[in-house]
Amino acid sequence: MKQTRILLSESEIPTHWYNVVADLPKPPAPPRGPDGEPLDPSAMLAIFPENIIEQEISAERWIAIPEAVREIYQQWRPSPMHRAHRLEQVLGTPAKIFYKNESVSASGSHKLNSAIAQAYFNKQAGIKRLTTETGAGQWGSSLALAGQMFGLDVRVYMVNVSYQQKPFRRSMMQTWGAEVLASPTELTRCGRKILADDPGNPGSLGIAISEAVEEAAGRDDTKYSLGSVLNHVLLHQTIIGQEAKKQLEQVGEYPDMIFAPCGGGSNFAGLAFPFLADAASGDKAPRLVAVEPASCPSLTRGHYAYDFGDTEGLTPLTLMYTLGHDFMPPSIHAGGLRYHGASALVSQLYHEKLIEAISVPQIATFEAGITFSRCEGIIPAPESCHAIRAVIDEALRCKESGEAKTLLFNLSGHGHFDMASYDKYLSGDLENYAYPEAAVNAALAHLPLGELAE
Amino acid sequence: MKQTRILLSESEIPTHWYNVVADLPKPPAPPRGPDGEPLDPSAMLAIFPENIIEQEISAERWIAIPEAVREIYQQWRPSPMHRAHRLEQVLGTPAKIFYKNESVSASGSHKLNSAIAQAYFNKQAGIKRLTTETGAGQWGSSLALAGQMFGLDVRVYMVNVSYQQKPFRRSMMQTWGAEVLASPTELTRCGRKILADDPGNPGSLGIAISEAVEEAAGRDDTKYSLGSVLNHVLLHQTIIGQEAKKQLEQVGEYPDMIFAPCGGGSNFAGLAFPFLADAASGDKAPRLVAVEPASCPSLTRGHYAYDFGDTEGLTPLTLMYTLGHDFMPPSIHAGGLRYHGASALVSQLYHEKLIEAISVPQIATFEAGITFSRCEGIIPAPESCHAIRAVIDEALRCKESGEAKTLLFNLSGHGHFDMASYDKYLSGDLENYAYPEAAVNAALAHLPLGELAE
Repeated sequence: MKQTRILLSESEIPTHWYNVVADLPKPPAPPRGPDGEPLDPSAMLAIFPENIIEQEISAERWIAIPEAVREIYQQWRPSPMHRAHRLEQVLGTPAKIFYKNESVSASGSHKLNSAIAQAYFNKQAGIKRLTTETGAGQWGSSLALAGQMFGLDVRVYMVNVSYQQKPFRRSMMQTWGAEVLASPTELTRCGRKILADDPGNPGSLGIAISEAVEEAAGRDDTKYSLGSVLNHVLLHQTIIGQEAKKQLEQVGEYPDMIFAPCGGGSNFAGLAFPFLADAASGDKAPRLVAVEPASCPSLTRGHYAYDFGDTEGLTPLTLMYTLGHDFMPPSIHAGGLRYHGASALVSQLYHEKLIEAISVPQIATFEAGITFSRCEGIIPAPESCHAIRAVIDEALRCKESGEAKTLLFNLSGHGHFDMASYDKYLSGDLENYAYPEAAVNAALAHLPLGELAE
Repeated sequence: MKQTRILLSESEIPTHWYNVVADLPKPPAPPRGPDGEPLDPSAMLAIFPENIIEQEISAERWIAIPEAVREIYQQWRPSPMHRAHRLEQVLGTPAKIFYKNESVSASGSHKLNSAIAQAYFNKQAGIKRLTTETGAGQWGSSLALAGQMFGLDVRVYMVNVSYQQKPFRRSMMQTWGAEVLASPTELTRCGRKILADDPGNPGSLGIAISEAVEEAAGRDDTKYSLGSVLNHVLLHQTIIGQEAKKQLEQVGEYPDMIFAPCGGGSNFAGLAFPFLADAASGDKAPRLVAVEPASCPSLTRGHYAYDFGDTEGLTPLTLMYTLGHDFMPPSIHAGGLRYHGASALVSQLYHEKLIEAISVPQIATFEAGITFSRCEGIIPAPESCHAIRAVIDEALRCKESGEAKTLLFNLSGHGHFDMASYDKYLSGDLENYAYPEAAVNAALAHLPLGELAE
């Protein structure tokens, strides 16, 4: 019987998160204020507790995972790794395809890894409430559940267009006890300003972040929680890659190439960063490929410059690949990849050519997702379909060349709440959105410090 | 660190299905024709292949699981068992609560266990197409995926009201390549007859079965596939209970009571039957409790009599607990439990007092599901909420009495496609449907052989 699933025991849940900062060729560039001056980390205390800020700026290679967090991880971790024998067979490729299955968490994606950790550290710091934003709903639902598990109240600013289109992600958050608001709201100064200018504004991730940050900054009992982009969020996801290494070792494999969807970066970093440690130690060097949407390609088409993380300019300035903080990405169905920038760490690694990036068009990602689901059963999230598209393309190149490469990708989530998108694909109604060059150029003209990146 | 999840390795996937017929105190009553005469099994050849009929009538205790079926099972099996520490703590009960997690299959429920087996045996028998019915969509989506994996075309007659209310279960089946029709259709004699009498008929499971059976009986390349009720379907599910026994052994436990939702019976049988083997060998005897909806309580309020499995009377007559084949159950959200009868095997065991049954009202089941999801993360299917309600009630009785009972239940599926039902609960719009006594009495007056059961 061919082995299709590679499991680890509970005792093999990683005990530490891996911090890639320890292995960077040079230290990360500091965040800056709107005046361009380097910011002291204490500037973040208004929205994050001290223990989270310590992780955000740490250069320690290994950071211990608290036992209470590992105990909850155990409800679905170690997550399974699968060998996609049936997909290989359908493609007729000599490549070996493996995937790490993060869709098995209760919230349906890798996002729960960081949500549990953030809720824990906020609870430890005496915080009572968390605010956050959500687009596709994967992060919001993860934080709703994590808040519930640690007795924290959670308020989610959900991008209005998603709130309307994805009522069941909203129900999921409410089932787990969170309060969900359609953003922009009348509750924040920033929301009121946007609605005054444009009463029908559909919202965006950047706007929702502005609202959640504004609220947290204004209340002592409340902090803000972010689902990607920041160093500590990427850190929490590195359990994915650590487990994946052990699972491949168990079957005597090591990946030639690793693929993961890339929006803010936590999905990609979670799988790829622990393999960078091998490259840093001169041991082995798999090619690490971030896969972005063709219509929102921050790494492959953006500028490497200081920019805001949100639309309104409430966050610190970070050195990153950006399409401009006021760029409004097209309404692709992979809501988790609809973000103007990329995390500072992923950006730095890309800038230093330690990782690669490619972009893929929307329709081709759903085509890949359908092929995958008919072979492997699991219906992938639209974000995950981006990695699957890239893996299938590489496997087909291997078919041409006869190379038996070992390919690994992150099946970051399931698509149970994205079936309306699959419906659109199946009925031929899905758009393919070209790269919105004019809109990006307009947004890049507003870079707060101009092109002074380096 | 408390252990919350109990895993088995791939090599521990059961090699045989357990056939409870071998351990019954007396042989099952034979199916009968509409004239009341016992039917020869060959009468089923019009709708089932011979290898499935052999399983249906077998009295062998152990039936080997083909390697090709076990290989696909491996994509999600052995399924995890969880100890619900957090739920126990919230309830403040001395009881230990374990659940078998069947929600991890690609289709989201235990139904895939039998779908894979049925698709395999039909493929072996040279069949090209399968027809089936689905209500809530869990069975239809499971058969869609199984058909895809073995290269069989699948047509699903989906109860019209579900087709309208659960478009995403429909999308899921289409993603896996199945054809989905809203039943009643104009394609079958039975569908046309019903639509002629009542053009707005919302459909029912009984009608959809009639249509799927009629089509299969009329085409040589096509057979019919059923998701519950029949002996071979219950047989395929017994891997659940076999795995559960091993998992409890691993932590030194044995259940005092086992709970599972009960509609047709495959969910209950899958978990409970392997424990009946212990009772039969005089070894141990856990209490086995089937949990039904208060508004469709075939075991607790039905008659033990011969009746049809479908609305139109196309199936053989089976000795079972029934509310009458033309009883139309209220529109509860646990679509998988909206069936007028119970399987012959479950009915016989209940009649011989080897198992117990209770019924629970709808609102209380969702209340239990919410409590569970806030402790354990997983949002349960409305069917599974029935078992959870019963377990919570028992755990609270243990709190009163101080007994530290070991309780086990079947978390048969997740509720990702049932969030509209959770929405209704959360907004206070859910109905509680009383037992529809007059409608049941009217239907029971139409029992085809009258009260001649025994």
